[in-house]
Amino acid sequence: MAIAPWKQLLINALESNAHLKHSSFFQLSTIGTNGRPSNRTVVFRGFQDNTDKIQINTDGRSRKIEELKRCSSGEICWYFTDSWEQFRINGQIDIIDGSNPSPLKLQQREKSWFASSLRSRLQYLGPNPGLPRLSDETQPAISLDPSAGPVDAFCLLILDPDQVDYLNLKSNLRLTYISSVSATAEKSWNVENVNP
Amino acid sequence: MAIAPWKQLLINALESNAHLKHSSFFQLSTIGTNGRPSNRTVVFRGFQDNTDKIQINTDGRSRKIEELKRCSSGEICWYFTDSWEQFRINGQIDIIDGSNPSPLKLQQREKSWFASSLRSRLQYLGPNPGLPRLSDETQPAISLDPSAGPVDAFCLLILDPDQVDYLNLKSNLRLTYISSVSATAEKSWNVENVNP
Repeated sequence: MAIAPWKQLLINALESNAHLKHSSFFQLSTIGTNGRPSNRTVVFRGFQDNTDKIQINTDGRSRKIEELKRCSSGEICWYFTDSWEQFRINGQIDIIDGSNPSPLKLQQREKSWFASSLRSRLQYLGPNPGLPRLSDETQPAISLDPSAGPVDAFCLLILDPDQVDYLNLKSNLRLTYISSVSATAEKSWNVENVNP
Repeated sequence: MAIAPWKQLLINALESNAHLKHSSFFQLSTIGTNGRPSNRTVVFRGFQDNTDKIQINTDGRSRKIEELKRCSSGEICWYFTDSWEQFRINGQIDIIDGSNPSPLKLQQREKSWFASSLRSRLQYLGPNPGLPRLSDETQPAISLDPSAGPVDAFCLLILDPDQVDYLNLKSNLRLTYISSVSATAEKSWNVENVNP
């Protein structure tokens, strides 16, 4: 499979902004269950294997899961504050939770679980996100066996990009990438230089 | 009119992150004309007068205008990288271009135009954003009289918030604010402490 032409730009941006912790954060927008836009910051968890698919970990009890079940489209807006580059990445999002029938996908979920820090994993044992906080008291200390596999609430999202809009505010360059899929299911990308 | 209870939190976040140029940038999501989410970085241009309405300048030829004409809802995701605070601000967006019938709104648009730097204003004289770039040659130098009023492409957006989701990752606090409007058109806010 050929590498997506925008992927190298994104890898370069990640490298040149790597000194900033927040450079791995981006905003993921979805369609809310009320039909209105929904937008939140999430963490980039790498590309899936050697593809251009983008991995995100999330809590299966969060609102975005219900939203994605109704409308699987999402758009990432990723702004790099040091290099002044923006990537708008639009695609379909696959939800992989513990009930997924595919052994391969369950394996990917497990891999993403163990790639997370213990502190990140502990979040999935906390109370249901978005529900009223029942007590101001500190939650009882939760311990987690570092070798234990993913808990029920842990969910892997895979965004498969089909359109990318790249903007470089330093060089004043804007490129739009649109993919098409051939009869043999090969994805190819068309790039256009457009006005910023 | 009472100040919205989340507005002071946002003012505090702006102050504590003011040393970062990018703290005035946020991501605005809308519904694309194809029904898919659309998301881009824009610049905060202040609150409208003493209200909690959020001002954004944009090019009337950009795709978001067509999107907002079909669906006027938007969600801002504003992440403050130093204080680890996130504001998700959902509301209806009013588009104010030069054809607006309201003299008051035209005045607001003019005020926002003159509040922008000359460099920002010059952008609205450039070629149509998103259209193919016709030439790699440098555009002819455009000059702009600093006292000249807004050009046709200049458009003011006003987001009127009706839901705000506040998250503080340092204190692990999450508050959701939902507004309601009384029979006398008074807006009031209800706040709830929820699990992060």
